Amino acid sequence: MDPTARRLNMADVAALAGVSKATVSRVLSGAPGVSDETRARVKALVDELSYVVSPDAARLSRGSTGRVAVVMPQTTTWFYSAVLSGVLSVLRPEGFDTLVYQVADDRESRRFFADLPLRRQVDAVIVVAFPVSEFEQRQLAALGVPVVIAGGALADHPHVRIDDAAAARQAVTHLIRAGHERIAMINAALSPERPYAPPMDRMYGYRTALDEAGLDADPQLEVDVPWSVTMGAEGMDRLLSADRPPTAVFAFSDEVATGALRSLRRAGIAVPHAISVIGIDDHPVAELLDLTTVRQPVELQGTRAAEMTLALLGGDPGIQPQLTLPTHLVIRGTTAPAEPRGRTGDHGTPGGSGVTAG
Amino acid sequence: MDPTARRLNMADVAALAGVSKATVSRVLSGAPGVSDETRARVKALVDELSYVVSPDAARLSRGSTGRVAVVMPQTTTWFYSAVLSGVLSVLRPEGFDTLVYQVADDRESRRFFADLPLRRQVDAVIVVAFPVSEFEQRQLAALGVPVVIAGGALADHPHVRIDDAAAARQAVTHLIRAGHERIAMINAALSPERPYAPPMDRMYGYRTALDEAGLDADPQLEVDVPWSVTMGAEGMDRLLSADRPPTAVFAFSDEVATGALRSLRRAGIAVPHAISVIGIDDHPVAELLDLTTVRQPVELQGTRAAEMTLALLGGDPGIQPQLTLPTHLVIRGTTAPAEPRGRTGDHGTPGGSGVTAG
Repeated sequence: MDPTARRLNMADVAALAGVSKATVSRVLSGAPGVSDETRARVKALVDELSYVVSPDAARLSRGSTGRVAVVMPQTTTWFYSAVLSGVLSVLRPEGFDTLVYQVADDRESRRFFADLPLRRQVDAVIVVAFPVSEFEQRQLAALGVPVVIAGGALADHPHVRIDDAAAARQAVTHLIRAGHERIAMINAALSPERPYAPPMDRMYGYRTALDEAGLDADPQLEVDVPWSVTMGAEGMDRLLSADRPPTAVFAFSDEVATGALRSLRRAGIAVPHAISVIGIDDHPVAELLDLTTVRQPVELQGTRAAEMTLALLGGDPGIQPQLTLPTHLVIRGTTAPAEPRGRTGDHGTPGGSGVTAG
Repeated sequence: MDPTARRLNMADVAALAGVSKATVSRVLSGAPGVSDETRARVKALVDELSYVVSPDAARLSRGSTGRVAVVMPQTTTWFYSAVLSGVLSVLRPEGFDTLVYQVADDRESRRFFADLPLRRQVDAVIVVAFPVSEFEQRQLAALGVPVVIAGGALADHPHVRIDDAAAARQAVTHLIRAGHERIAMINAALSPERPYAPPMDRMYGYRTALDEAGLDADPQLEVDVPWSVTMGAEGMDRLLSADRPPTAVFAFSDEVATGALRSLRRAGIAVPHAISVIGIDDHPVAELLDLTTVRQPVELQGTRAAEMTLALLGGDPGIQPQLTLPTHLVIRGTTAPAEPRGRTGDHGTPGGSGVTAG
């Protein structure tokens, strides 16, 4: 590629071809109203000069930017980076570029949606798994472009997600079938002023599973922490200080579960013999930690959301606007049958022959 | 925000103000050649109508896109998602949007640099830690925009990185000081046809540290695997089948080290009593696994690269174009003093009182 190529502009081509800039523009965008002879002459000149069409200019003329925005609260958590990977793997081969916006906290989110840098920049927006306020919803609608939700649901926008309540029931039912009766949940809410479906739905699934098994929910066994590994450890510490600690713990996610495992290791409590632990995700670390979990397809939520976006942009009438992907139990070494009754609460068996947490 | 606002275009504003589109354009872009009276009238009308300037149109007129591209081989590995997070945290507050390109393998990379979707799309490019061929280097140069390298170096582009050889020496010297003499390295090359500095530099650091301590390098103790957790396990398996297995292993990265730990756990080999393991990164999983490592600042490589990019775009003459960030040893539970001579190779002590791998 000639490095000087980019210095040529449409006016240069027009002058060299002896036509107007409008004619060059029509040839480059494939618009009608130019004779075959002129079209051929301009094209030959463009080829010869390695003239590079500005994608912005060409797309603006037909009202398309060729770009899709992905908005997510963070990029460093595996979930979000895997969804992003799925989105990119679908959009790039179709010639779409992806703008990524990280909206880390409430303040940034308010500013982002007030400034709306997406305006006139993108053909569509993919919002990945975070709570969106009423104001933000209106701002998204005002963009007038398709909005697709990955890893959640929002208003009547097309979405791809898992059934969070069902995933929680899969996890808790596994613990109940293993004979556990004192089952705790470490939930991870994001922010009190922003209701967010996954934590609520997973809590609902947890309580429903207990209820169906005739087990009482104990408020002391429900703890709520911000979503992080460190906070998972803090949640576990709180459970260990309950009057009657649990024999099994269902964590909101594998990352929360890894924090719980760290806390248990530090307390010298054997996993799974004294306490069983299960998460949701099948995060890459789950296999390393031998963590029992409920697997959700994560990258696939990104690819499906991107495919939905392309279908909407292409006017495909066959789109399925609400897609729920299946989850399934992956049994590993951090869950085991409950100890016989009467030994409940006996945590004094570190160094047992089983899996050591973390 | 009025949802109908976006339907108004420059022609509408021009018609309502009784001026030409060119005049509206000049007012919106702040160009001279418009009377104060006309300028005020157009501005008032624009405000009243909530007319939204197309960022593309406004920026094209002054030759700037307001966008920066980040090119990385993948988004799902922690290293890349953390660098991306650092980049986004600097660029967005400065009003820049970020296009992300994932170039997963050689084939995709060739196609990406041949098609060059970056052309006319961005003001600058940040390339994150992957081997760039001669052809790709020329394509990058032909873009005619600043190129900054994060997590590596390339030609004479400004870059921010760590000193890989020094980091490897920190790791290996820690093992030598603990009395180890049979020290292996599991290296992670990316692709044989693309020389990539970090694996070569870390191998150099490993050999130099051994040499300075008067220890012989043993080719059987140098294994090379593709960069992944699974491959780390395969690399460890190969080391365990050596005639005289190592007593300590230096892994290219924490992710490779976690694979090695998994292999050791499955083989029933106690860590650190029979084999010590050290990585590079201080990946979030390192603390959970109690993995000794050499910490590199990762998100900071992204923020520094983005700051460099902004300085270049702003014509800041004070930029330091080659920035090397420091690394340091983080001692945790996977390394310990070597067993006394004569017991080397005695791996039969699983279930010891120390840290159990993974």
